[in-house]
Amino acid sequence: MSTVSLFAAGLTHLRANLRSLLVAALVCVSLQLLAPPSHADEGMWMPAQLSQIAGQLTKAGLKLPTATLQDLKKGPLAAVINLNGCTASFVSADGLIVTNHHCAVGAIQRNSTASANLLEAGFTAKKRTDERWAGPGSRVLITLKETEVTGQFRAALKGVKDDLAAFEKVDGLKKQLIKTCEADGQSRCRVATYDGGARYVLVHQLDLRDVRLVHAPPRAIGVYGGDIDNWMWPRHTGDWALFRAYVGKDGRPADHANTNVPFRPKKWLTVSAQGVKAGSYVMVAGYPGRTYRYRLPLELKDAEAVSYPRTIKILADLVTILETQQKASASARVKLTSLRAGLANYLKYSRGLLDGFRKSQATAAETKRYAALKGWIAQDAIRRATYERPLQRLEARLTEMQGRRRRAEVLRWMLRLPVLVRTAATLDWLATEREKPDEKRDRGYQKRDWARLQGRLEQRARTYVKAADQEMMVYLLRQANGLPGSARIAVVDALLKKFGAKGSKTEAGISRAVAHLYSKQTLAKDKTRKKLFAAGRKKFKSRDPMLKFVMALQPLRRKIDEQHKRDAGFLAAHRPAYLAALRDRFGEMYPDANSTLRVTFGNVKGYSPRESIQYTPQTSLAGVLEKHTGKAPFDVPPSAREAIRRTHAKIRQGRATSPWIDKGLGSVGVNFLSTCDTTGGNSGSPTLDAQGRLVGLLFDGNYEAMASDWVFDRVKTRSIHVDIRYLLWALHEVLGGQHLLNEMGHGTPKRSL
Amino acid sequence: MSTVSLFAAGLTHLRANLRSLLVAALVCVSLQLLAPPSHADEGMWMPAQLSQIAGQLTKAGLKLPTATLQDLKKGPLAAVINLNGCTASFVSADGLIVTNHHCAVGAIQRNSTASANLLEAGFTAKKRTDERWAGPGSRVLITLKETEVTGQFRAALKGVKDDLAAFEKVDGLKKQLIKTCEADGQSRCRVATYDGGARYVLVHQLDLRDVRLVHAPPRAIGVYGGDIDNWMWPRHTGDWALFRAYVGKDGRPADHANTNVPFRPKKWLTVSAQGVKAGSYVMVAGYPGRTYRYRLPLELKDAEAVSYPRTIKILADLVTILETQQKASASARVKLTSLRAGLANYLKYSRGLLDGFRKSQATAAETKRYAALKGWIAQDAIRRATYERPLQRLEARLTEMQGRRRRAEVLRWMLRLPVLVRTAATLDWLATEREKPDEKRDRGYQKRDWARLQGRLEQRARTYVKAADQEMMVYLLRQANGLPGSARIAVVDALLKKFGAKGSKTEAGISRAVAHLYSKQTLAKDKTRKKLFAAGRKKFKSRDPMLKFVMALQPLRRKIDEQHKRDAGFLAAHRPAYLAALRDRFGEMYPDANSTLRVTFGNVKGYSPRESIQYTPQTSLAGVLEKHTGKAPFDVPPSAREAIRRTHAKIRQGRATSPWIDKGLGSVGVNFLSTCDTTGGNSGSPTLDAQGRLVGLLFDGNYEAMASDWVFDRVKTRSIHVDIRYLLWALHEVLGGQHLLNEMGHGTPKRSL
Repeated sequence: MSTVSLFAAGLTHLRANLRSLLVAALVCVSLQLLAPPSHADEGMWMPAQLSQIAGQLTKAGLKLPTATLQDLKKGPLAAVINLNGCTASFVSADGLIVTNHHCAVGAIQRNSTASANLLEAGFTAKKRTDERWAGPGSRVLITLKETEVTGQFRAALKGVKDDLAAFEKVDGLKKQLIKTCEADGQSRCRVATYDGGARYVLVHQLDLRDVRLVHAPPRAIGVYGGDIDNWMWPRHTGDWALFRAYVGKDGRPADHANTNVPFRPKKWLTVSAQGVKAGSYVMVAGYPGRTYRYRLPLELKDAEAVSYPRTIKILADLVTILETQQKASASARVKLTSLRAGLANYLKYSRGLLDGFRKSQATAAETKRYAALKGWIAQDAIRRATYERPLQRLEARLTEMQGRRRRAEVLRWMLRLPVLVRTAATLDWLATEREKPDEKRDRGYQKRDWARLQGRLEQRARTYVKAADQEMMVYLLRQANGLPGSARIAVVDALLKKFGAKGSKTEAGISRAVAHLYSKQTLAKDKTRKKLFAAGRKKFKSRDPMLKFVMALQPLRRKIDEQHKRDAGFLAAHRPAYLAALRDRFGEMYPDANSTLRVTFGNVKGYSPRESIQYTPQTSLAGVLEKHTGKAPFDVPPSAREAIRRTHAKIRQGRATSPWIDKGLGSVGVNFLSTCDTTGGNSGSPTLDAQGRLVGLLFDGNYEAMASDWVFDRVKTRSIHVDIRYLLWALHEVLGGQHLLNEMGHGTPKRSL
Repeated sequence: MSTVSLFAAGLTHLRANLRSLLVAALVCVSLQLLAPPSHADEGMWMPAQLSQIAGQLTKAGLKLPTATLQDLKKGPLAAVINLNGCTASFVSADGLIVTNHHCAVGAIQRNSTASANLLEAGFTAKKRTDERWAGPGSRVLITLKETEVTGQFRAALKGVKDDLAAFEKVDGLKKQLIKTCEADGQSRCRVATYDGGARYVLVHQLDLRDVRLVHAPPRAIGVYGGDIDNWMWPRHTGDWALFRAYVGKDGRPADHANTNVPFRPKKWLTVSAQGVKAGSYVMVAGYPGRTYRYRLPLELKDAEAVSYPRTIKILADLVTILETQQKASASARVKLTSLRAGLANYLKYSRGLLDGFRKSQATAAETKRYAALKGWIAQDAIRRATYERPLQRLEARLTEMQGRRRRAEVLRWMLRLPVLVRTAATLDWLATEREKPDEKRDRGYQKRDWARLQGRLEQRARTYVKAADQEMMVYLLRQANGLPGSARIAVVDALLKKFGAKGSKTEAGISRAVAHLYSKQTLAKDKTRKKLFAAGRKKFKSRDPMLKFVMALQPLRRKIDEQHKRDAGFLAAHRPAYLAALRDRFGEMYPDANSTLRVTFGNVKGYSPRESIQYTPQTSLAGVLEKHTGKAPFDVPPSAREAIRRTHAKIRQGRATSPWIDKGLGSVGVNFLSTCDTTGGNSGSPTLDAQGRLVGLLFDGNYEAMASDWVFDRVKTRSIHVDIRYLLWALHEVLGGQHLLNEMGHGTPKRSL
């Protein structure tokens, strides 16, 4: 997910999105590099940095010239795109796209009904006209160019002292650069910030607005193992989906229309059936979202002791609420699936992360290392003059921010989760922003964002379930009601007072207040939303209690927003000093992930999760059958079971000639592990071999490495990939996708499996 | 546990006992050998058989003469004893005994109170006078001699046609042999039946009645991992306890008395700190309870499709009931621990067994193999004449038995679980048996059994919790009320009718009926129990509704009992024919386990539980710390954590000189896996090395091998052992047991750890 989508992303992209939610909640949390990045496996490298590590790449096994790998026009990276916050890649001349199933859930859900549940049954378009529109919020972004613009920011900030002014300068310059870049009307641009403000890069992307679902496996393949196996090894998940990008007949980006034609990308990846084995060189190219590998000990301490435990509690409560609500009806089950799955996934992630955090004892190690860095600074007059004061100020500010964030956190949960509250909050904010000149509007609310914003509102409205929304709101009002005096929210207090929620009557009062807020539900109507979307501040009126409640909150939201901007301005000016000190001490490093295109490389390799257990790095069809119990999430469809048995019988008889059979495994590869360094946003990334050919899809990290966004543990951090041969086999043997295999250059094997 | 204890064992030995309960419930279920026992790992060999497999033993690594291993007087087997249904062994000249912690739970519980909970805190007697009596039901049985008596049974059965008469003949002869054998007043004898009646052996044991608890580790060591890790690998459980046997000053078995002195065994095991490593030869000597490796396909089919699923349902319901009841008070928690743990353990076992059963597809394989055996029989006139008719009759009878067992099963659960019902049932049955001449009394109710019977009643009374008893009874009456017309229990029907439990009023009626049954609770009083225990049939009177209810059930119980005897008589005459056919076809085989002394041998070896996971066969102190979360069941006591860190620090510094440190592991061994073939009853068995020295304690099997009682899978069946070095290390470093180490021949290491 990009910085932009942090404010505008729909529920569809909740996995990535929630990660951003936490990023925002934890704006003052982090972890510093434990050692200079000297190992092959650690590091999410910018394409421009690859030439600096060419030796490492070659040594690890890369067979491609580094210059080819770096080339955004003709190299394999040209085929690596951003699809709604996930990564994806082109695999045919006709714009066929491969990504993860879990990145396609929104699109699949959009095309499902209670009676025709594509999430459950899967989907394969037999011809182009059967391909299903992924919806107005779906976007393919192709990175065309990255331009370093740090100098312009340094110049603009020269002499600026006030934090808010600094923020406005940075923000204004970003908007100006973006506006120029997007002037052609078909581009999507952003200024990516590296290392908290040390470096700025203008990223120019082509923005395709008509994206269609081509294929998704049935749930029992695409989500095989479900929540139980999520983050786990050994894994047997067919986590893939196929899309196609469409453009106008003129070849330019266009809104969805039947007359559109498939996009013809400049570059697409070769899909290889050569496969991998233990030790194989692999690399992952994609758009990793956020890492926190260069943070201060005080941020680390806070994440471990305060922020994550608090987040975990809230997530666990919300998941329970949604699970109960999903039992009410088949329709509620479908509508709430994506939100519940996203929250549950993030809960498991947060728990694992906290667990890993504690086990790594990173806070203690980092505290020691930070003290050593400060000692090293103190040894030299120039270093003292350069770093001491900025570091002191940074520490003081971060501590202050931790002290005052509670109210903003509760408000953020409230304004983001219940569909009607979020809808009201978005529309209300937009109404105010509309009054400003476009370049002064908040990012995410500028004219360039309106179509996407509206698309997402529409998409979100489709997931609205009144009872679930209300239950979440009851829970979040209870949270607000638990805030200490200095952090209380006056508007919430007034609402609760009005409905008699005091002392022993709190619960009944909250229920009455929520019933009141949901008594009109006008925001559930398309017409109302459209009217309010178009309305400016003056015409923005309604008798809907929900809207009135959210409108009353706007002054506080503005106040908090301004404080965030001040903080951001301060951090942008001061955090780079810390990074500079680290570079000064350790030399060049890869920057933290920031949703820009990166490359990580490593090897196919197992690991030991704990004493007396050794994981080997590949799974196969045999393991799929081994896990089968007949009950979800371990229910292999009968046709797939039959196909596996057929395939294995032929292998045993020596009659299997298909290129996607792995002789070493005696079966077809399903998933594999690698030492690559990935995170959220990398989902769906192509896994490339030494020649740059597609051999897998990154789809998960392992449980033991959940703290890897903060602290990279070489021994236990692994990425989990779909073996692309599983997709090829399944399309051919089970899912009726031979025409798609043909399109990817894999014609019918001469003899059948 | 022995055949005798099947009828008389207390709740203390529930683990073994429930297994027998199921054995009884499944009297018509089983599985036949899938292949002749040609592999080293499979087989629970009778001492007398060892000379026949001497070559195999030597090849596997045994360094002891087979004759020494067979010798029940001077060999290591002379130190291997039966302790309350578990196995144990002498480890000092003063009668010190080592077994599992889970075999000591009853004794520990008996010596615990809510305020001094030894289960939680552990216990180490600092001197002999501190050792705590394990209670009146506790027995040490030392096997002195095994005598083949098959000829006498063949002679007695000659010409007997009637099933009940056959049973009576066998039963009468057994009692007569036992009576003669026990004439010295200090022996415990039994006639063990092999292969369902193919062979009879008179087992002569010395019976020690004063057993005392010497040491138990705290729960957080002895039950580390709790239910979560139970049956699992990797494992880190200190599942050991120490006892001591006492005798009168004359050296003869005596009732518990302060004047008693430690028993001096003829033989005790050498405790070795040499340890094991992958590949080491190990053997387990002990008293495995029951296996079903030679059963008919129709028995297998029934176990998989009917019996186990039914048992699992009932166990799961009962565990839930007890868990709820345990929350009521600290006292209920302690009193119900053993029963709940036993049922939960058996539930997990049954689920795993059923799972393994299904995965093994043993039923299909066995059906095929049985057909082949029948084909082989049909090829030859003599074989036809010998086997055909007995096999036909056996199949017909087993099928008939399956058809009529439901009522007996429900009645059995009811009369065994609630403490008051079980007490009433025992006393009522005894009152009738008392009227008979002693040799005609049922086994378990003869004069020789009275003291133990009374001890167990007393022990059981200590676990009585009214509310829990009632809840179980409500549940079991509901089961009885669900029986079909032909299987209904008239006495239960009358009770329910009386309290208006009909149609929609069933639940309220059952509650009223149970309240009625528990309205007097006279059986909770020691005085009443003692009076009724001594009363004959005529004096056996009471106004207690519970007793009246159970007395009314006696005619039905007698009827069912007689039918069981007829069935047993029939099976004893016909099952041997099947075993004989198998021997005829495959040659000599080890017999099914029957609680007699057996030896199994194999190697220390890991395994792969499923695709992409490899388990290595040893765990260490490092893994204990790795699992530590601070929350039960993963809460290493602070003193133990400190000791582990101290030990590891010394190892790292090269200063560790203690003999119990394993250089290969870089730590102290905690648990290990072997390929030995074991089952319930083997718990606490000494694990011996090639020289016959004690290197471990068998305490569990792995989850993947839960079906091994029925079908032995060489690839995945493993036994789990405590590494005896963990006990030595813990006694020295954590638990203040240096005096016990001294007694076991492990004086203080010259330099401390």
